[in-house]
Amino acid sequence: MTSSSTDTPAPVLVLVPGAAGAPADGSDPFHIADATAPQLSITDLVVTRGDGIFETIGAFDGTPINVGPHLARLARSASLLGLPAPDQEAIAAAVDASIEAHADVPELTIRVMYTRGIEGNGVPTCWIDAHVSDDWAPYRAGIRVATLDRGLATTVFEESPWLLQGAKTLSYAVNMAAVREAKSRGAQDALFVATDGYVLEGPTSTLLVRRGDAYLTTPVSAGVLPGTCVGSLFEALQKEGHEAREQLMSVEDVATSDGAWLLSSTRLAAPITHLDDVELPVDPELTAHFEAILTGRV
Amino acid sequence: MTSSSTDTPAPVLVLVPGAAGAPADGSDPFHIADATAPQLSITDLVVTRGDGIFETIGAFDGTPINVGPHLARLARSASLLGLPAPDQEAIAAAVDASIEAHADVPELTIRVMYTRGIEGNGVPTCWIDAHVSDDWAPYRAGIRVATLDRGLATTVFEESPWLLQGAKTLSYAVNMAAVREAKSRGAQDALFVATDGYVLEGPTSTLLVRRGDAYLTTPVSAGVLPGTCVGSLFEALQKEGHEAREQLMSVEDVATSDGAWLLSSTRLAAPITHLDDVELPVDPELTAHFEAILTGRV
Repeated sequence: MTSSSTDTPAPVLVLVPGAAGAPADGSDPFHIADATAPQLSITDLVVTRGDGIFETIGAFDGTPINVGPHLARLARSASLLGLPAPDQEAIAAAVDASIEAHADVPELTIRVMYTRGIEGNGVPTCWIDAHVSDDWAPYRAGIRVATLDRGLATTVFEESPWLLQGAKTLSYAVNMAAVREAKSRGAQDALFVATDGYVLEGPTSTLLVRRGDAYLTTPVSAGVLPGTCVGSLFEALQKEGHEAREQLMSVEDVATSDGAWLLSSTRLAAPITHLDDVELPVDPELTAHFEAILTGRV
Repeated sequence: MTSSSTDTPAPVLVLVPGAAGAPADGSDPFHIADATAPQLSITDLVVTRGDGIFETIGAFDGTPINVGPHLARLARSASLLGLPAPDQEAIAAAVDASIEAHADVPELTIRVMYTRGIEGNGVPTCWIDAHVSDDWAPYRAGIRVATLDRGLATTVFEESPWLLQGAKTLSYAVNMAAVREAKSRGAQDALFVATDGYVLEGPTSTLLVRRGDAYLTTPVSAGVLPGTCVGSLFEALQKEGHEAREQLMSVEDVATSDGAWLLSSTRLAAPITHLDDVELPVDPELTAHFEAILTGRV
C-alpha cells in the first residue's frame, strides 16, 4: 500500500559530508537521507550567492555514463572557483549508492552538487540526488533553437577568469532566462553567441556540428564547458575514421552545416531542426547512432 | 545559562509562505522558524539553479532603512526574471517581525530572499533572516578598489535582457569571484568596468563619485542595480542644493575625481582610498555626513 498518487518512483538523496576529504567527526563519507525533508541551511552559500558547482549524470538501465569525465570536470570547476578539490572516489561511490537505492528505471538523472558550504565554515556541502528523468522523447525528436547574444567575447576565459566562463556553476539564472527567452520565440532551446560572432554552447548543452565528414564543436578556450558527451562522441567518431575537432564557428557556419545537435547527458543528442528561421538537415540514423554511443549501448 | 560559546545574539529566521499572495492552505503569511535547522529543499530552484532574487536591508538601532525602495527593487528584479510579483506589504511586515524577534543590537543585516520555489511548484519560496552585522569599521575607514572587466557592454540591459543585468539575483558566483580576484590584488573590493570603457558598480555595491560640486553615479540604463543608498543620498544632496545625477564615467573620470565611494545598505559609504594604484582624495567629514543620512540619523 502506498499513499502516493503517482507511479513515479521516489527520488533518492545521498548526503556526502566526505566529498572534500574524510568528515572531521569520523562519520561515513556519505549516507542516504530523506529527499522529501528540508536538508539545507539558509546560510549555505549556494543559497545566498549561487556559490557552488554541479554535474548532471545520466544513467541508462542502471549504468551511469561518463562518471569519470563528469567528476574530472567537477574538479576543474572547483579549481576555477577556488573551492577545495572534490574527492572524486568518494563521490563516485556515492553516485553508485544513489543508483542502487533507486528503483530500477530506464533513465535516471543524477545531480552531483558541491557548494562553498555554510557561511564561515569553509567546508563544501555536497549531495547527490537521483530521480527519474523527464520524458525527453519530444525534445530528442528535434528542436528549434534560437540564437541569443551571450554578451561576452570568446577571449574572456583567458583574460577575465573571474567571469567563470567554462565553470559549471550553480549561478544559472542567466541560463534559465535564456531558455525562457528562446521559448518565448517559439523555440525549445537556445544557442549562445559571443560578441565576436562565434557560436558558444546552449544554456545547458554542448554544440555539435557536422560539415561534410568533419564533426566540430566550440573550443573550450572560448569559454564553454568541456562537454562530456562531445568527448565520448569524438572518441567514437575518430575511431570510425572521421575528423572530429574543436573549431570556432559563426552562426552562418552552423546555418549552412550538414547537421547540428545540442548534446547533454540526459537529453543525449537532440538534432537542431531550425536555427532561428533556417531549416537544418536532419539525419535520424546518425542521431540514433549518437544515442547508442551516449547511452553506452555501443 | 547558555551553552553558546559566543556573545553574538542568535540570528532570527522568518519564513514567508505568503510572499506572493495568501498561502493556499489559509495559514499565516509569515512565521518565525528555527534558524539553526535545515529549512530548504534540495529541489528549490535557488539551490539547483541560483534562480532567485534578494535584497539586503540594514537596520540601525532597530530601524530598518529604505524598506520601501528595497522591496520596490525586489519587485523590479522579480519582473526582470519573470517571477510572480512579491506582496511587498506582507514582506515588510515580516521584516518588522524579524527585527522585533531579534535581540537589540546597533546594526542588523536583514536579508530578504525570494526564489522560483521548488521545481514544478510554481510558488516562490521566501524567507527573511536577521543577523548581527559584520564589523565593517575597517572597511568604512577606506578601501582599496581594483577595477575588473565585467566582459559586458553598457548596452546589454536594453539589447539582451536575458543576461539579467540590473536584476539582483541569487546567481552571484561571478560577483564573489570578482571580490576574491580583487583581494588577490591587495584590494578590499572591486569595481566592474564595461567593455565600452565605462565604470559600472561593485559586485555588491553602488558607485558614487564627486566631481567638484556634482555627485554622480552610473546610469541604471547601463545595466547596474538602482542603488537604494544612492537614492537616499541624491535626495538629501539635492535638498542641500547640490547637483546629483546619473552619468556614464570612464575609469579615468573616477581616478581624477574629487572623491569616490562604494555604497551599500550595511557597509554604508566606504571611501575609495585607491583605485588600482591611483590614490583618491578622501573627505572624512563628508563620509560621516553620508553615514548619518544612510543610517537615518539626519
